Amino acid sequence: LDKLRRRVVGFAKEAKKMAREDPRRIAHSFKVGLALTLVSIFYYVKPLFHGCGLSTMWAVLTVVVVMEYTVGATLSKGLNRAFATLVAGALGVAAHQIAVLCGDKGEPVLLAFFVFILAAAASFSRFIPEIKARYDYGVTIFILTFSLVAVSSYRVEELIQLAHQRLATIAIGVAICLCTSIFLFPVWAGQDLHNLVAENLEKLASFFDGFAAEYFADHQRGETSANWEGKPFLQVYKSVLNSKSKEESLANFARWEPSHGRFLFRHPWEHYLKIGALSRRCASSMDALSTCIAAPPSKSKPCADPDLQLKIRTACKEISSESAKALKEISSAIRSMTFPCSANGHLSAAMAKLTKEMQAADDSDLSGILHVATTASLLAEL
Amino acid sequence: LDKLRRRVVGFAKEAKKMAREDPRRIAHSFKVGLALTLVSIFYYVKPLFHGCGLSTMWAVLTVVVVMEYTVGATLSKGLNRAFATLVAGALGVAAHQIAVLCGDKGEPVLLAFFVFILAAAASFSRFIPEIKARYDYGVTIFILTFSLVAVSSYRVEELIQLAHQRLATIAIGVAICLCTSIFLFPVWAGQDLHNLVAENLEKLASFFDGFAAEYFADHQRGETSANWEGKPFLQVYKSVLNSKSKEESLANFARWEPSHGRFLFRHPWEHYLKIGALSRRCASSMDALSTCIAAPPSKSKPCADPDLQLKIRTACKEISSESAKALKEISSAIRSMTFPCSANGHLSAAMAKLTKEMQAADDSDLSGILHVATTASLLAEL
Repeated sequence: LDKLRRRVVGFAKEAKKMAREDPRRIAHSFKVGLALTLVSIFYYVKPLFHGCGLSTMWAVLTVVVVMEYTVGATLSKGLNRAFATLVAGALGVAAHQIAVLCGDKGEPVLLAFFVFILAAAASFSRFIPEIKARYDYGVTIFILTFSLVAVSSYRVEELIQLAHQRLATIAIGVAICLCTSIFLFPVWAGQDLHNLVAENLEKLASFFDGFAAEYFADHQRGETSANWEGKPFLQVYKSVLNSKSKEESLANFARWEPSHGRFLFRHPWEHYLKIGALSRRCASSMDALSTCIAAPPSKSKPCADPDLQLKIRTACKEISSESAKALKEISSAIRSMTFPCSANGHLSAAMAKLTKEMQAADDSDLSGILHVATTASLLAEL
Repeated sequence: LDKLRRRVVGFAKEAKKMAREDPRRIAHSFKVGLALTLVSIFYYVKPLFHGCGLSTMWAVLTVVVVMEYTVGATLSKGLNRAFATLVAGALGVAAHQIAVLCGDKGEPVLLAFFVFILAAAASFSRFIPEIKARYDYGVTIFILTFSLVAVSSYRVEELIQLAHQRLATIAIGVAICLCTSIFLFPVWAGQDLHNLVAENLEKLASFFDGFAAEYFADHQRGETSANWEGKPFLQVYKSVLNSKSKEESLANFARWEPSHGRFLFRHPWEHYLKIGALSRRCASSMDALSTCIAAPPSKSKPCADPDLQLKIRTACKEISSESAKALKEISSAIRSMTFPCSANGHLSAAMAKLTKEMQAADDSDLSGILHVATTASLLAEL
């Protein structure tokens, strides 16, 4: 019993943390509640209920399934659902008409055959990556509606009326979802993607900052045995490494969104993915760099004279602080959607240092190179 | 029209490729078709239909939604659905009983209030990562069933009988799905995860192989201007970098699976995730290494004398071929689930070389270090 209580308390704490991290989550929960309450009015008001009959259920079902966190996701699901229902319903009615021609014995056999073939074909199409990414939900609904219409046509008399009612209720459900998600505290996937990319660049910048400030400063003081594993700046880029799937799903939803804020419809979302990929490459070279730092210092490095070492260190420190400045510039330029003017200056300063010290083989040149690539692509976008 | 035709042809080609890559996908498509046809028998056979009435629809719905590619995913969805329906149905009936006490006017208000609160709370719980990972689908179904039962209780007379029918049909749907997915050409998430991890290790090994064979061989012949970007061994590790989300979802589903093949229930799936994380670290240092290779050779490296350079190169070549051997050992050990005995030998050979040549600062020591970590964790597991 004590264990159970501790678990409940742990859960409550986690829920509180979630809510504090992003208050829009609470708003979303209330929006779901509101949409459901709105749709259930159709049950309570007599004339509305008798217009739709038992099909009202489908409106409730649609709201529960379609309502998602971001506007883009809700739109994509809602449109997928409405369109797939329409197509599959029409096909189902057609299948019924054909099957009826075959007489009482042949009808169920033919219907079962149609269902088998179409379900198999549609399931297979879900393995194709493009369909999986954009229309996965639509295909599921297609299978669902087609089999429901085709199969139940065997028992239900007024098929057309039923299909009509069902389509109307689904449209109502989708409309309610869209209204609540667009007009009440909307959460735009595009905005989220925008912030995520800018934030990731800031994280990379803070790595360079920490690197310049802590690592080289320590070295200058002659302390090399510090515990690098625990430093916060060595952890900060790790979340960047794993951001791929989140970025992709956000970009996928953002494509469905109408123009909002400073984003127009058909905003070049794929550029964000490119910047994201470059940040991940940058983060992965940081990963290598930090392993190098965290490794115990090798005892014997007899070849380099201390004077050269000092020179290299100072150069590296400057490179990383210039890189940090450039990254911060870029990130704030993305946030304000302007052209990063002084970033070029910082970058060329870093590059000048870099080429001057190129003969000294150090890992910093790796991240420098990646970093140039990041900026170049960014400039191409804006 | 010509554009449309080209698109259709492109689609067909892609579908063919998908089918050839993994023939189990075709089997899966037919399994979905079969399960749907089986469930639609309930419509065609009169006594069965009259036992369940219109609720038969729910069996079809369940089959379409629950049927997934791997056994683990189907099991997790099916159990989630059945359990959530049971709990939500009971709560819905309870809510109805309470609401009835408030009289004709109060009933709809109280019902709407219940729906609002529970839907909001359940939606919020979906943001908590643990629930999101394992019970996301169950929570959706919980909201769905609760609102359907609570809201329709206002209009429907024989609530208990309806709930009973619905539960029975959902159970039938889940049972059909499980039977087809477990007994007909099962696709085990655990097996897939196992193969994926072993395959990723092999990819890393092939990188080392290619590195040893092509890069150092070229250098020995004095050709440094080859086009490294295009080499296949430089592309092969990239898929390893992005395997995180796939591995996690497979491990998640594998937890639900009963014992199959050589895997028991409660097989230590989390170890696979650890190995996967280490392979990704290894791949990310390879990424850094290959950027270094692909970069144009710096013109001036005056400090090192050619004799030392040659020595370093030979050492690096040996290190990477030993590493490749060790990785291949480990991978085949994972495949056969035995203890990797000779991998230790290869690894210590590589390490001996490494420490001997530690004074030569080259990136290979980076990947060497990561690599030791990979093996160490593996040995701990087996």
